[in-house]
Amino acid sequence: MRSRFKPWAADLIDAHPEIIIPQPETVKGKWHEEFGNDNPIHIEAGSGKGRFILGMAKANPHINYIGIELFDSVIVTGLQGVLDTPGGIPNLRLLRVNAQEIESFFSAGEIDRVYLNFSDPWPKTRHAKRRLTHESFLKLYEAILPAGGEVHFKTDNRGLFEYSLISISEYGMLLKDVSLDLHANEPEWNIMTEYEEKFSKKGQPIYRLEAKFQAAH
Amino acid sequence: MRSRFKPWAADLIDAHPEIIIPQPETVKGKWHEEFGNDNPIHIEAGSGKGRFILGMAKANPHINYIGIELFDSVIVTGLQGVLDTPGGIPNLRLLRVNAQEIESFFSAGEIDRVYLNFSDPWPKTRHAKRRLTHESFLKLYEAILPAGGEVHFKTDNRGLFEYSLISISEYGMLLKDVSLDLHANEPEWNIMTEYEEKFSKKGQPIYRLEAKFQAAH
Repeated sequence: MRSRFKPWAADLIDAHPEIIIPQPETVKGKWHEEFGNDNPIHIEAGSGKGRFILGMAKANPHINYIGIELFDSVIVTGLQGVLDTPGGIPNLRLLRVNAQEIESFFSAGEIDRVYLNFSDPWPKTRHAKRRLTHESFLKLYEAILPAGGEVHFKTDNRGLFEYSLISISEYGMLLKDVSLDLHANEPEWNIMTEYEEKFSKKGQPIYRLEAKFQAAH
Repeated sequence: MRSRFKPWAADLIDAHPEIIIPQPETVKGKWHEEFGNDNPIHIEAGSGKGRFILGMAKANPHINYIGIELFDSVIVTGLQGVLDTPGGIPNLRLLRVNAQEIESFFSAGEIDRVYLNFSDPWPKTRHAKRRLTHESFLKLYEAILPAGGEVHFKTDNRGLFEYSLISISEYGMLLKDVSLDLHANEPEWNIMTEYEEKFSKKGQPIYRLEAKFQAAH
């Protein structure tokens, strides 16, 4: 999710190390200290402009959230959203890092759930390894989740969802919930992303799944 | 798939025991003898009017097919299709029995693949046990398939497909292939059922999956 170049973004990010953690590797294994509580921690890999993760954090104050997004010009929108919220969003942090490196920032079992929303579909087979539901990414999530930890994924991209169902099955994960048209019976807890609103307005189905790692894996 | 009452159906069925096997429990463990070869045997549970299983049998002469359908008034259409085929369809048999009783008709590992097409969705939760992808049916299929044996399933019913993905995952089966809109890129080997043609013409997506039993289960 790239946006136009925003030369001021880097400065605003640097000015708010309390929200966009500058050296997250130093917080590895200490995220509950960082949040000042023992509440569960949920992360979103590829949080984009932050609409989902900010909405979740506001709706669920007893869960801690961390949004992971690589691009300054995109993550800065989430930062502005936090700054515009009266009192801030104390149970939210953002990381301007590559999701491929999450093992550098979280220790085993430190994270309770991983959200993936409208991830880049990387439709070419030779780019399959870049899909956030590729085996190599599932392995990363498993490394930072406890046994039974869950991945919640939604997308409008049919090819990516088909691929993900198979990848998750082959990995030995257990499928807990599936919706092949989320907005046909939208659950009241659903928080829409920017993409989700755009695509569901066009009448395209939104696909969603919940899957968990099995203890025996 | 019920049709109007056809009083002549029972007589026509009785007149063709070479196609609609009258006492299939006597053939249990001897289906390769019945077909006179060692080719793989694929069954369709709920074969309805037979368009799929007849089409498959004609297209794949080196595979043996058995269609299972309970209702006289429905299975008779498949019988007529066989009788109307010059030379008949030697690699096809039909069984007028309940799919719940397949263990009475096939011995362990005798069947190589199970097809389920546009099965009754039984949308009420209290009827979930009647869905042909319910755990109790998966257990039946596993009992007659070899390790690694496959179930191929297609439907236009979103709720049934969502349910089936979860049921199959919980059973410990491995998802091999998934299509959430079969006709968007229809494979050349696809044989349409009556329902499939009707619903895909309306623009409704057809869902399809292939799953296999795992040896370790």
